[in-house]
Amino acid sequence: MSQQFAAVDVIRTKRDGGALSDAQIDWVIDAYTRGEVAEEQMSALAMAILLRGMTRAEISRWTRAMIASGSRLDFSGLPRPAVDKHSTGGVGDKVTLPLAPLVAACGAAVPQLSGRGLGHTGGTLDKLESVPGWRAALSLDEVDAQLRDVGAVICAATADLAPADRKLYALRDVTGTVEAVPLIASSIMSKKIAEGTRALVLDVKVGSGAFMKDLDLARELATTMVALGTDAGVETRALITDMSTPLGRTAGNALEVRESVEVLAGGGPADLVELTVVLAREMLDAVGIRDVDPADALRDGRAMDAWRRMIAAQGGDPDAELPTARHTHVVTAEADGVLSTVDALAVGVAAWRLGAGRARREEAVQAGAGVELHAVRGERVRAGQPLLTLHTDTPERFEWALQALEGGIAVGGGAAAVPLVRERITA
Amino acid sequence: MSQQFAAVDVIRTKRDGGALSDAQIDWVIDAYTRGEVAEEQMSALAMAILLRGMTRAEISRWTRAMIASGSRLDFSGLPRPAVDKHSTGGVGDKVTLPLAPLVAACGAAVPQLSGRGLGHTGGTLDKLESVPGWRAALSLDEVDAQLRDVGAVICAATADLAPADRKLYALRDVTGTVEAVPLIASSIMSKKIAEGTRALVLDVKVGSGAFMKDLDLARELATTMVALGTDAGVETRALITDMSTPLGRTAGNALEVRESVEVLAGGGPADLVELTVVLAREMLDAVGIRDVDPADALRDGRAMDAWRRMIAAQGGDPDAELPTARHTHVVTAEADGVLSTVDALAVGVAAWRLGAGRARREEAVQAGAGVELHAVRGERVRAGQPLLTLHTDTPERFEWALQALEGGIAVGGGAAAVPLVRERITA
Repeated sequence: MSQQFAAVDVIRTKRDGGALSDAQIDWVIDAYTRGEVAEEQMSALAMAILLRGMTRAEISRWTRAMIASGSRLDFSGLPRPAVDKHSTGGVGDKVTLPLAPLVAACGAAVPQLSGRGLGHTGGTLDKLESVPGWRAALSLDEVDAQLRDVGAVICAATADLAPADRKLYALRDVTGTVEAVPLIASSIMSKKIAEGTRALVLDVKVGSGAFMKDLDLARELATTMVALGTDAGVETRALITDMSTPLGRTAGNALEVRESVEVLAGGGPADLVELTVVLAREMLDAVGIRDVDPADALRDGRAMDAWRRMIAAQGGDPDAELPTARHTHVVTAEADGVLSTVDALAVGVAAWRLGAGRARREEAVQAGAGVELHAVRGERVRAGQPLLTLHTDTPERFEWALQALEGGIAVGGGAAAVPLVRERITA
Repeated sequence: MSQQFAAVDVIRTKRDGGALSDAQIDWVIDAYTRGEVAEEQMSALAMAILLRGMTRAEISRWTRAMIASGSRLDFSGLPRPAVDKHSTGGVGDKVTLPLAPLVAACGAAVPQLSGRGLGHTGGTLDKLESVPGWRAALSLDEVDAQLRDVGAVICAATADLAPADRKLYALRDVTGTVEAVPLIASSIMSKKIAEGTRALVLDVKVGSGAFMKDLDLARELATTMVALGTDAGVETRALITDMSTPLGRTAGNALEVRESVEVLAGGGPADLVELTVVLAREMLDAVGIRDVDPADALRDGRAMDAWRRMIAAQGGDPDAELPTARHTHVVTAEADGVLSTVDALAVGVAAWRLGAGRARREEAVQAGAGVELHAVRGERVRAGQPLLTLHTDTPERFEWALQALEGGIAVGGGAAAVPLVRERITA
């Protein structure tokens, strides 16, 4: 990184449709992290990248430069193979909660460094913080010890993993440059590669409640991320899964923990169980564990046992009563018929407005708030039957949440059957 | 401007190829001027505008909003019609110096609010400051009095004309977003329309020494600016003129003043005289003065008289010796033949490196530095004949200036005859 460039020349190269050289990329990421390339220069470059695109080689180098901006973990010294999962985020997507202990129960180590929710998709840490006593912040030594002992850790990502990405993400958020596949892919993969696992399974959501509304874009993102992981020596696969309707029957922090525990107890909604098991098989296969069926580990209590140990290791009480919201409001069906639409975005926004999510990073979330579905897409319902219950501590928000649901719940007409797992992408 | 927008929504509209609404444009310019829209947001928007373009209606509104960010002058109360000229900048382009007094001598009022040079093109104020005693800063009352008395003023633009443009220009300079026709056109025209003259003649340069290297782009810029002026009620015309070789035989501050005085005395190089007279005719025609031939006013001393009064009114001594550089270096022809290339950019960069220009806004310029041409493109020369003289107070820069000239001066082969005035654009 000794070579010096003028930021404006780097911007012009991309603006005019050229490919950035390795040296230009290394320099611009490093200089941006150090504050030498100004925010307004990086935002112009990000917009040029969004509109001009990047080659696979450019995205790969960009990712590598972001990893090099911070420290890199290494779990290769563990007695079990380490494997990670990342979801691009969806409504009711609590899969990480049952999945991490399930995969640990089957013999792999799962270090799941997670984030908080912003907007209509929930954050894994926000969900787990509804468990009394549980804490998200662990030292690296604690992570290592817990992986050796329990096999699964869900905790907050440390600030020194890909700090360039942290800075760039905040910038993209306010400059209309979030929606660029090269920048999304390198943002996710820089953090995931820096985590140092041997394998990685990506759950790329597609549909109204997902970041990617369109299958082509989801496929482009998945393919790009699989290539990036592969280039970095991480065994990487992606599943493209449906997010046109919520996953499971709950969206909200404590509500989702409760539903996750049902899955770990061998019950829970069919779609949530299916996705948990499919992802577990993919993760285990990626590290060569092919003689264990995760469905068995759900049935026989081994996954539940790993969950209880994982929660307890981080100060949580797995037997404690989970918080509930102080107020509820039930929405009923207006007519007989098939529930044709339960829109993921509508439910996600409603849960967010009820207090399950935050609009700004510094806001607190309500542990008990959210939406509980009593019927799912494709079910036959009768007029007056409860369709969903809204939960909140702040009942003045019911009206606002109900507005979000307008047009998002519909009875009558047909419900097209959408497969949960739409595509599988491998290197 | 009461409506509120989110900056990121405005950016996304343009990013995705849409047209900004009048209300969006008014808001974003006003909020940017007040610091509410951040620099990194405006630079992302500027890049999106560069890559997506703007409709004529958008550019017109953008220009109007930039004018509204500051104050607007009004010269309609003067006894003579006020007319202005703007050049997009070229090497050796000292036309403003003889032109303003010439047009004043023919009966119009010429308030020429000018800037300083940055990079390889010189600034009118830098040139005039080589006249001992002359000062660029005038109050509006002084401008008004001088226009009534002399008819011509060349002075520094006041800070409150289109302040949004001042802020945006500084941002574009460091973010690779200078080269967007909508932004160039609105930047120039917001200041020129805010100056409040009845008519405006634009000299759009094209060629190596100009900002626009390509005739199509120059035509697009000229057409856009003529439309903007017309939309704002200013009688606007543009000439597209050649800048592949320097204008006249000098590039450098005092050198160009000396050459301008030669023109005012009825002499001077043919191309400089031609362009001065053509632009004067255009300016006079634009305000309805058609019974005076500016060529006569050069010959009979009326233009020189106006020049002397204009300089004296701003504290300058028209009879004072002009500064000369302490060191000179002569470049001679290496062979007999036709001087086929005298590249404008090469000469401009050489003059700049010799000290005639500045690399940063806060630098001082050398009054005597620059390049003097002894032969021009198309002339037959003999080996050993002086082709040009370099002037500087800092002789260690000769080498650096000579490097800029490499390949820019060539003898042999043919010299294509390029017409000085290439196109004329009217509404």
